[in-house]
Amino acid sequence: MEILITNDDGPYSSGLKILYEAVKNLGNIHIVVPETPKSASGLGITLHKPLRISQIFFRDMNIYLINGTPSDIIYIALNMLFNKIDLVLSGINIGDNTSMQVILSSGTVGAAAQAALSGIPAIAFSVAVETPKELEGENDLVYSLTRNVKKIIEAINEKGFPKDIDLININFPNIPSNTFELARIARTRYSNIVDERLDPRGHRYYWIYGEPLKPEPGTDVYIVHVKKNIAFTPIKLDFRDISKETVTSFLKYLSSKEK
Amino acid sequence: MEILITNDDGPYSSGLKILYEAVKNLGNIHIVVPETPKSASGLGITLHKPLRISQIFFRDMNIYLINGTPSDIIYIALNMLFNKIDLVLSGINIGDNTSMQVILSSGTVGAAAQAALSGIPAIAFSVAVETPKELEGENDLVYSLTRNVKKIIEAINEKGFPKDIDLININFPNIPSNTFELARIARTRYSNIVDERLDPRGHRYYWIYGEPLKPEPGTDVYIVHVKKNIAFTPIKLDFRDISKETVTSFLKYLSSKEK
Repeated sequence: MEILITNDDGPYSSGLKILYEAVKNLGNIHIVVPETPKSASGLGITLHKPLRISQIFFRDMNIYLINGTPSDIIYIALNMLFNKIDLVLSGINIGDNTSMQVILSSGTVGAAAQAALSGIPAIAFSVAVETPKELEGENDLVYSLTRNVKKIIEAINEKGFPKDIDLININFPNIPSNTFELARIARTRYSNIVDERLDPRGHRYYWIYGEPLKPEPGTDVYIVHVKKNIAFTPIKLDFRDISKETVTSFLKYLSSKEK
Repeated sequence: MEILITNDDGPYSSGLKILYEAVKNLGNIHIVVPETPKSASGLGITLHKPLRISQIFFRDMNIYLINGTPSDIIYIALNMLFNKIDLVLSGINIGDNTSMQVILSSGTVGAAAQAALSGIPAIAFSVAVETPKELEGENDLVYSLTRNVKKIIEAINEKGFPKDIDLININFPNIPSNTFELARIARTRYSNIVDERLDPRGHRYYWIYGEPLKPEPGTDVYIVHVKKNIAFTPIKLDFRDISKETVTSFLKYLSSKEK
């Protein structure tokens, strides 16, 4: 199996190293990441600036670097660097990617989504820790992450990627867990707050930050943060069909306004 | 009705001016845009840098400028600048926002999605022209856009925003049309191509670009580009439910690997 690994935090991410160690014996591994961290860049692509590719060898990993977004990386990797990729793995991201609010702006899930739109099955991995430090060295959490990532890829090797799915969004809790739970995506995770401050010259400036909302049972947020299990969220890149009635009646009204 | 207008191309966008002119007599209008163009920025938010607000008066518009992304604008506007917003309008974007591939990285749709996640109904407007020039001055296309935007907002004023929907994604063709058509979202719009070149020093660099794919009937891409009608796409920010069977059988297998 030809596996492409990426990580929106760039080559020095401790999550990248864990992902690599977990899967390095399960296929031919190719690593391509953005030169600099690109968190919260969603599915942005770079059209106005030429991209360059370089290579480094770091912590036993042969890494391609591209001066672009997570989506750029997927395009370049699939169109330029490698003839055939069977599976794209993105992560492990420092901090969970749960809820629509977060997922829609996530570079980690974004890279997996771009792979899926290019026809390659993909998995996004994230862990609900606050700092990269929690993933450094050998500790129980790192051991548990390694083991569970390995199990997922082995299951795909044996059973194939689940049908009708574009990508799987995996979110690990901040403590070791071996329990996978099927999750649905929460709508919001944070209530967004804007903090107004004054700079030394007396001018106003603002910080945006989020305060966690109380999650609903069954959601990815709940499974990861309350139950501390592994949230397994299958994603099909299709928005849900909407009860057409209210829409068609609105459209009919709109068209009737034509004179 | 308190209407918030935004445009990811910033204050000088000709699409912003058309949107403003279309709705200025239909409610209290508030305009907040990013200082500099933020195309293809999706739903990214700015957490690591303080944001600032300034104000300009340009082409009869009183405009708030924020040094952030389209999503930042929505947060700041809803949390800091205005007490109550009933409807968010984003656009009119130069270039259509059709297909999942494009929608997921669109700043125009991104701003509307952030508004929706904050509980405010929103509409994203885009027009399938190639350059801002086509929207300058008074021409048939500008007249048609103005008229149809107005009709939509009037219909919302009279009938309310369609129920069960988070946002409406409106895409106008590049010629005048008065026909609204209910659209589903195409999966991809372009086949992505990477072009390799040599710089004057003989080093490789790359451009990403897309070649249009043949669109399927019923999709937003088809309605806008082939039929040249107005694509009216209702969006619920929920990914489609996936046939759970293949997923649960995969999960069962995964859990059985536990020793």
